[in-house]
Amino acid sequence: MSERWVGADLGGSNLRVALLDGEHRVVRRWRCAVGHLAGGGVLDALREGVRAVAGSETVRGVGVGVPGLVDPLRGSVRVAPNLSGLSGVALGPDLQRDLGVPVWVENDVNAIAVGEWARGAGRGARTVLVLTLGTGVGGGLILDGSLYRGPDGSAGEVGHMPLYPRGPRCACGARGCLEMYASATAVVRAAQARGAPAEGGALSVARAARAGNRAARQVLARAGRALGVAAAGLVNLLNLDRIVVGGGLAGAWDLLEPHARRELERRAFAVPLERFRWGPWKLGDDAGVVGASILARESLGL
Amino acid sequence: MSERWVGADLGGSNLRVALLDGEHRVVRRWRCAVGHLAGGGVLDALREGVRAVAGSETVRGVGVGVPGLVDPLRGSVRVAPNLSGLSGVALGPDLQRDLGVPVWVENDVNAIAVGEWARGAGRGARTVLVLTLGTGVGGGLILDGSLYRGPDGSAGEVGHMPLYPRGPRCACGARGCLEMYASATAVVRAAQARGAPAEGGALSVARAARAGNRAARQVLARAGRALGVAAAGLVNLLNLDRIVVGGGLAGAWDLLEPHARRELERRAFAVPLERFRWGPWKLGDDAGVVGASILARESLGL
Repeated sequence: MSERWVGADLGGSNLRVALLDGEHRVVRRWRCAVGHLAGGGVLDALREGVRAVAGSETVRGVGVGVPGLVDPLRGSVRVAPNLSGLSGVALGPDLQRDLGVPVWVENDVNAIAVGEWARGAGRGARTVLVLTLGTGVGGGLILDGSLYRGPDGSAGEVGHMPLYPRGPRCACGARGCLEMYASATAVVRAAQARGAPAEGGALSVARAARAGNRAARQVLARAGRALGVAAAGLVNLLNLDRIVVGGGLAGAWDLLEPHARRELERRAFAVPLERFRWGPWKLGDDAGVVGASILARESLGL
Repeated sequence: MSERWVGADLGGSNLRVALLDGEHRVVRRWRCAVGHLAGGGVLDALREGVRAVAGSETVRGVGVGVPGLVDPLRGSVRVAPNLSGLSGVALGPDLQRDLGVPVWVENDVNAIAVGEWARGAGRGARTVLVLTLGTGVGGGLILDGSLYRGPDGSAGEVGHMPLYPRGPRCACGARGCLEMYASATAVVRAAQARGAPAEGGALSVARAARAGNRAARQVLARAGRALGVAAAGLVNLLNLDRIVVGGGLAGAWDLLEPHARRELERRAFAVPLERFRWGPWKLGDDAGVVGASILARESLGL
């Protein structure tokens, strides 16, 4: 029987769990809503999901991506703003005891970044930023061929880089963070303010833009420019091979890219710019479970 | 006889060469002006400086910091905008042949960063950004305890991160780069525009500010705020242990810091902020020669 791994991607509203083969291809998927659950309920859901996808198969290890600040060496969750019941929970040791297999806990965007880097749109590159444009803007950094966590594990927080320092107030307390311009939330809010169709979220803004709606096009142009300005700074600072764009706005990348490119080319230096490429994610909603399962394997030295 | 190394710090106007002991403490210094020299003349000056500081002592290796983009593995200079005669020159191999000792070539700010990290104000930290506030704003990154160069060796270019994307035009072609606000050049220019004393460069602006000159204080407050905004983004992105501030404005750090701190605390997240510290460099003009000599040693696996 071939090798089996489990990856879990815990979001603010959904938990996705998958069984993966030795090449980290998804064999089976399972999901449930978790937005309403307290800490213990999330743990129950995780156990249920792992058992459901594993069935009678033997699993080598489980990786879990968590939306918050984690301590991977202890397997604990330090702060999880959107799943407050999990803050302070020793998720890894608890699950490991119950399931009888090694469990690795990682920040959710870091898991997505590893998934896209190893098996998706970042393949072949050694220095990659994976951006998730969703409710907020998240980031995961691969530097010189390995995940860069920083000393507290909080690195990659690109959503709160000041973009227009005198801009509107962000939920984080600062002004003009990238997230205020380039998240799916920001696009929907700006579309509503301009009377563009936005009932179905950011992708309905994209549909309206494709159909020629002028306000929708302007909203996406603004988000694209913000991404281009931020990307230029990051290309100059980190000499990135690649940026991979994921999350709810990834499906609108073709509409964002021309505006982003104009700012990027105006601001980034010639040498790092020549190497640099960007594009939308490839694994989509599977990126997190793939990355978490890869990190579980790596934690075992396999 | 104790171990000896040579470090050289090649600037746009001066070449500094030093002999260092096995602990990378400076034993002897030598300097000359190079702003007027072509590529061959710079090589001659380097040879002369190394011989002058070494005297009759046996040197294990030579490290050279160069103001430009270098290829450390080949020891060649790719582009050196301020010493154009050096672009394309195989500096390392040429010197190594003439001097008969191993030569390591590195970007000048990277050498300064390694010097301050290993023997100066970054000591003990593993994740450090060294900023040089001089003619421009340079940066060198130590991540997880080693110099981060990026795939082209161009990483650390923090001076051209967009700070106020709709701000004034920078020499690089973009708008509102950090360098437009926080370099010594920018401080002098802003002081002149406001009628504050600036004949003696950025430090005379600092002297005027200390003496109570209102315009000089405002100019330094603006530079401090720009540094604080940039630092907040970098602390969130890289989870830095420390920023070390060097270059011509380092001597005004006490005047910049309160303004920088206000922006930093408003914008950086609590967890990375708690760990973070900053301050002026300790080695000053010796940082480059110390760092270059350390890199020469490391290149030999010693």
